[in-house]
Amino acid sequence: MKQVYEISLLYDFYGELLTESQREIIRMYYFEDFSLAEIGEARGASRSAAHDLIKRSVDKLHGFEEKLHLIERFQEQSRQLQQILEFVEEAQCKAQDPETVKAILSRILTQAQEMKIMR
Amino acid sequence: MKQVYEISLLYDFYGELLTESQREIIRMYYFEDFSLAEIGEARGASRSAAHDLIKRSVDKLHGFEEKLHLIERFQEQSRQLQQILEFVEEAQCKAQDPETVKAILSRILTQAQEMKIMR
Repeated sequence: MKQVYEISLLYDFYGELLTESQREIIRMYYFEDFSLAEIGEARGASRSAAHDLIKRSVDKLHGFEEKLHLIERFQEQSRQLQQILEFVEEAQCKAQDPETVKAILSRILTQAQEMKIMR
Repeated sequence: MKQVYEISLLYDFYGELLTESQREIIRMYYFEDFSLAEIGEARGASRSAAHDLIKRSVDKLHGFEEKLHLIERFQEQSRQLQQILEFVEEAQCKAQDPETVKAILSRILTQAQEMKIMR
């Protein structure tokens, strides 16, 4: 399976650290649905050489995530932000009850302060 | 001036993409307060060679920020999160007034949805 979602996240975060040639081969294979044979042909190379080039580029993207963990942090932040949004919606429903609202707002403050935006 | 704060941010985000030798020279110069002459001596090199090594490592860190803009994004997120915290504190003060609380909660929702956690 091509794992387009995972590659598009990696490409989005770290694509700028690849060469233009590596970026192009990833775009062709993962986002524009060219086959290995077609990519090989476009480069005057074999299907197997195209496969190796793609694998090397993807390995490089994975290597950046292993070193920097930015996608991991992004996903953790998204979860925490989603939790804040749910608390806010809950507080909106309970706006008539000051004590409940205060308790929910305290939870939001705690959650927001915990958000690991800094590494 | 050494700009320790800026370098420590860059080092924190991108240090893993440097070689261990580049990381060490940055730590010595910016965080452990060794002089250029001392760093040169520790490496059997001249003061001016130490200066060049440091400059090259710092340029590399700046190059990563120019390509990935992660620190810029981090600072923007911090500002937005700070805004949310201020709204929450405001809502806590106005908890007795349901209509005002509702209005503030709407602003928090808007702000949280705008937070560009995704690139």
